[in-house]
Amino acid sequence: MPHFLKTTDADFDSRFTQILGLKREDSPDVDAAVAAIIDDVRRRGDAAVIELTAKFDRLELRPDTLAFTEAEIEAEIARVPEAEREALELAAERIRAYHVRQMPEDALWTDPTGAELGWRWTPVSAAGLYVPGGLASYPSSVLMNAIPAKVAGVERLVVACPTPGGAVNPLVLLAARIAGVDKVYRVGGAQAIAALAYGTATIHPVDKITGPGNAFVAAAKRRVFGKVGIDMIAGPSEILCIADHTANPEWVAIDLLSQAEHDQSAQALLLTPDADLAARVVAEIEKRLETLERREIAGASWRDYGTVIVTRDLAEAARLSDRVAPEHLELCVADPDALAAEIHHAGAIFLGSWTPEAIGDYVGGPNHVLPTARSARFSSGLSVLDFLKRTTLAKMSMNSLAAIGPSAETLAKSESLQAHGLSVRARLDALNATK
Amino acid sequence: MPHFLKTTDADFDSRFTQILGLKREDSPDVDAAVAAIIDDVRRRGDAAVIELTAKFDRLELRPDTLAFTEAEIEAEIARVPEAEREALELAAERIRAYHVRQMPEDALWTDPTGAELGWRWTPVSAAGLYVPGGLASYPSSVLMNAIPAKVAGVERLVVACPTPGGAVNPLVLLAARIAGVDKVYRVGGAQAIAALAYGTATIHPVDKITGPGNAFVAAAKRRVFGKVGIDMIAGPSEILCIADHTANPEWVAIDLLSQAEHDQSAQALLLTPDADLAARVVAEIEKRLETLERREIAGASWRDYGTVIVTRDLAEAARLSDRVAPEHLELCVADPDALAAEIHHAGAIFLGSWTPEAIGDYVGGPNHVLPTARSARFSSGLSVLDFLKRTTLAKMSMNSLAAIGPSAETLAKSESLQAHGLSVRARLDALNATK
Repeated sequence: MPHFLKTTDADFDSRFTQILGLKREDSPDVDAAVAAIIDDVRRRGDAAVIELTAKFDRLELRPDTLAFTEAEIEAEIARVPEAEREALELAAERIRAYHVRQMPEDALWTDPTGAELGWRWTPVSAAGLYVPGGLASYPSSVLMNAIPAKVAGVERLVVACPTPGGAVNPLVLLAARIAGVDKVYRVGGAQAIAALAYGTATIHPVDKITGPGNAFVAAAKRRVFGKVGIDMIAGPSEILCIADHTANPEWVAIDLLSQAEHDQSAQALLLTPDADLAARVVAEIEKRLETLERREIAGASWRDYGTVIVTRDLAEAARLSDRVAPEHLELCVADPDALAAEIHHAGAIFLGSWTPEAIGDYVGGPNHVLPTARSARFSSGLSVLDFLKRTTLAKMSMNSLAAIGPSAETLAKSESLQAHGLSVRARLDALNATK
Repeated sequence: MPHFLKTTDADFDSRFTQILGLKREDSPDVDAAVAAIIDDVRRRGDAAVIELTAKFDRLELRPDTLAFTEAEIEAEIARVPEAEREALELAAERIRAYHVRQMPEDALWTDPTGAELGWRWTPVSAAGLYVPGGLASYPSSVLMNAIPAKVAGVERLVVACPTPGGAVNPLVLLAARIAGVDKVYRVGGAQAIAALAYGTATIHPVDKITGPGNAFVAAAKRRVFGKVGIDMIAGPSEILCIADHTANPEWVAIDLLSQAEHDQSAQALLLTPDADLAARVVAEIEKRLETLERREIAGASWRDYGTVIVTRDLAEAARLSDRVAPEHLELCVADPDALAAEIHHAGAIFLGSWTPEAIGDYVGGPNHVLPTARSARFSSGLSVLDFLKRTTLAKMSMNSLAAIGPSAETLAKSESLQAHGLSVRARLDALNATK
């Protein structure tokens, strides 16, 4: 049974706070093992990568087979059925169209003193995208990571994906091809992250690493952060649905299960002022859990973390949702635009009953890499900005230096940074001498 | 003596690579101590913060004296000389005017299928700014961190600043007042970071923590990352100056020293095609180092990390600068705009001989919190974006769901995520039933 609360309950606040604090992730401490793997790859390069791949993925590689050849990729993607190819291409096109609009603008202006000020965006030169092997090897995630990088203008984009026993998902290779990935390495785990960050004779280092992975990959990303940029460390998925009497309880039930089926640590929450709807959604979930393919995973998630809250009204639901700051927020209500305006913290909002969250996982256009574990309070989903950086520009005229230089000198002195002050003073003296 | 290289030297590449790899920071391993402090603050709240402040800062506090009162702040800032107050106000005004232009736009559009797509930016609700005590207690950094937060719309903005033995820099309090900070706590170190991240009875938790600090503060920020957002972990400062024959060797020398005086681990580099200029800058630095107040720090930095490279031409200097990806890049050349266009990786560019880097530290307008240690390859200086997050929006119409829903269903099936597919299928069936 999920957690079932009413905001009018006397103990609501303490129970809600307890649910907010539930520790859903049990990350094993692999940090020492990962540190050793990274050291090994830094010291021995390809040889270490090849040995570790033999050990963990039961796959014997040589430097010249670390990457898929063009012919191998062609052969694999030829096996993809036409319907799936077309679906991937539609998804790629829509993701690209959305992300192109995220490209930020450069700026340059002259202020009243005559100083030119501004900034310029430039892409990261090279990016590496980690793609898990096995069950979590999602071609949609390849598109969601690779397309923003290409839109940003990243010159060199590579994928690292373990192929345990040599098995590869042809859809992953097709997604990489469609997205414009330059090279796909048959390497996974901490050894892949180390090779991407530090480089080997065969694998050139990159400047930024993104993409999901297991505990080893996450720990390795944390360790190489600083040497390269990384994206967020993703936790288990979440969905919060705010529904009113106009919502379809069957649809709401399936939507909640669509996140619960990801992971037994995923969390699905329903907030509604309609107690009757709440009961019908719970009943529908119980029914669906009898036949769902991933019923063990989804059932465990719903039992341990599933939460239903009957609220006084929609405004209260919006306030509680902000305290959760959910990764995915569905608004299955009569006026979703009005309700969305009351939301401050959410990774992605899906407005109205015709917008199941799963649309956003594949073909909606927005990115599906989103902040989890309440981090939407302070962070955003993946975007082209993750593959760009900004250089600020400043160019003083003689007039502007004369106008603002003395203040800089004063502040430098107050901070006991003499050379800072002198660097301004030397120019001010030269200006005065020419007068 | 600094490193002195010519790009025509036979061993240039290996020497340059060695300089790029110089480990300048010797961070002590304080992680275990920091973990214990954070645990203590989480368990015992104010009591732990007060004990740790007595221990590390020799200052006895009570819960009601953790924060400065308004009267205490007024009394302190009344001591600031008028010239310094005016300089801080000018700096604040210019920083605000620059950062206001960084505010990103929301977007909402309707795609050809009838789907509404877009995104919305919202501010972080509460932010905490760490300000070091003692020598590195820079009022300019208070402005550089606090103003972008206020421009972004952060509702609650607090400062934590240690006051060893009760000593406080009145300019720090004045900068906080000018920038609109709500509260200043007399707390520093890992205990301040823990209190800001987890909250105590007196110190409310924040969502984002920014600002520089010592090894304890840096380790604590790394540890609380995920619970709250943090800014970058800043390393020692860097300046790279590209100069041609039009540059003034005295000015270039002082500019290089203005970063060297920050820290003996700071790095100053000069790249010039003019061997004569190089020699004159080196001589001028030697001379200035005889009298500079911080000559021990600046001298150690210049001796250990200072680097002069005579290049074939300016284009080669630009390419080498990109390999350094310097925090601060000065272009003391005849045509700085043309040269800037060749640069891809730098935190901030200062164009032309009238723009000493120190202008950017105080009154230029752009932020002085910039990526160090070659991280300008993948990251940017502090901006209003650090205090905002983006929520993506998607709203399907019946028509758009009919158009793209089947592709989502196909991809969900290919990833073995049945409920994902069913959530789309249930709606498509309803659509078909109404036809």
